[in-house]
Amino acid sequence: MARRSVSTSRNGRRDAPYTSESLLAVAVEVFVERGYDGTSMEDLARAAGITKSSIYHHVRGKEELLRLAVGRALDALFAALDEPPAREGRAVDRLQYVVRRAAEVLVDELPYVTLLLRVRGNTETERWALERRREFDHRIAALVGQAIEDGDLRSDVDPRLATRLLFGMINSISEWYRPGRGRTRQHIADAVVRLAFDGLRKPSSTR
Amino acid sequence: MARRSVSTSRNGRRDAPYTSESLLAVAVEVFVERGYDGTSMEDLARAAGITKSSIYHHVRGKEELLRLAVGRALDALFAALDEPPAREGRAVDRLQYVVRRAAEVLVDELPYVTLLLRVRGNTETERWALERRREFDHRIAALVGQAIEDGDLRSDVDPRLATRLLFGMINSISEWYRPGRGRTRQHIADAVVRLAFDGLRKPSSTR
Repeated sequence: MARRSVSTSRNGRRDAPYTSESLLAVAVEVFVERGYDGTSMEDLARAAGITKSSIYHHVRGKEELLRLAVGRALDALFAALDEPPAREGRAVDRLQYVVRRAAEVLVDELPYVTLLLRVRGNTETERWALERRREFDHRIAALVGQAIEDGDLRSDVDPRLATRLLFGMINSISEWYRPGRGRTRQHIADAVVRLAFDGLRKPSSTR
Repeated sequence: MARRSVSTSRNGRRDAPYTSESLLAVAVEVFVERGYDGTSMEDLARAAGITKSSIYHHVRGKEELLRLAVGRALDALFAALDEPPAREGRAVDRLQYVVRRAAEVLVDELPYVTLLLRVRGNTETERWALERRREFDHRIAALVGQAIEDGDLRSDVDPRLATRLLFGMINSISEWYRPGRGRTRQHIADAVVRLAFDGLRKPSSTR
């Protein structure tokens, strides 16, 4: 998927030649809007304003586009786990770093993560993506478990349930966040970290 | 939608006559599985094991089934707002009660709330449901705002963003909770209230 093709712009929406990346961006939009199962190569060609054979110049088919798209989201999430602040120090601080980065990745890679969250497991690529998501969740749950053991997180919520609720909160951002409107990435990531770790209640109020 | 019809059980899956309620339960399952747009009256008849005309004996069409289904979820959520602990006392306590009840309603009415959460606004009924959801969100955001004003909730997260993240967490339960497996309703509602109000961090740890 490294070649470039000159688009045959059937609808005049696009003059520049497609790169694999710009084609992927169009495909992800269509997958999110119509659902992956409901998208045909024809739909993709129409949305991109090029012929189906131009698409086949870049990829073997729509499943390869799905793999590239969800792979981009997964790579960004796993990369966060490998950054030094996610690897060094107390588990609670590493967790806090990863929670912030996961919210940022969601905002930065919005359509790619949105697509990843909608994957249901009907194709081999979808099952692979679900498996990678589970692997990510296990690594987070392990961090939560370690931070409880260290005495930094409350022990009255079990790690897997806490992980699910935490990422439920983060992932829900994909349902309402639209770039350039209202809140910034920083504002959202701050709110997520505050709510996740310290909750809504005012720190000084009685518990 | 009060009459009963004797089912003509084409596939032997069901012998008893359908009531409007049992037909609705089948329809909601199919809507959640195939998506509302992707479900035909034929699909519903096949899943229920009755003829299309038997369905028309109960309802005017699939949009009426959708309205009854999402109406059931909305009624349960709004009923919680009208219960005495949601109306009387400090805003923070009322909010805490409503958050717990919303998690319980989600567990109790899982398929109905799941369907409500997937409504996208393509039909009049869907737009009505979205409007009611917005109304519910506004009432929660008003409670959050009041509790901040009372000095009980932190003032460094804005009420609408806090409401979105809070209900993002609650609503995400629909993605993994399955009745009868593992965690109980009580266990889940407790975890939601703890995380939402006090966060993951151990109460005694330094901030």
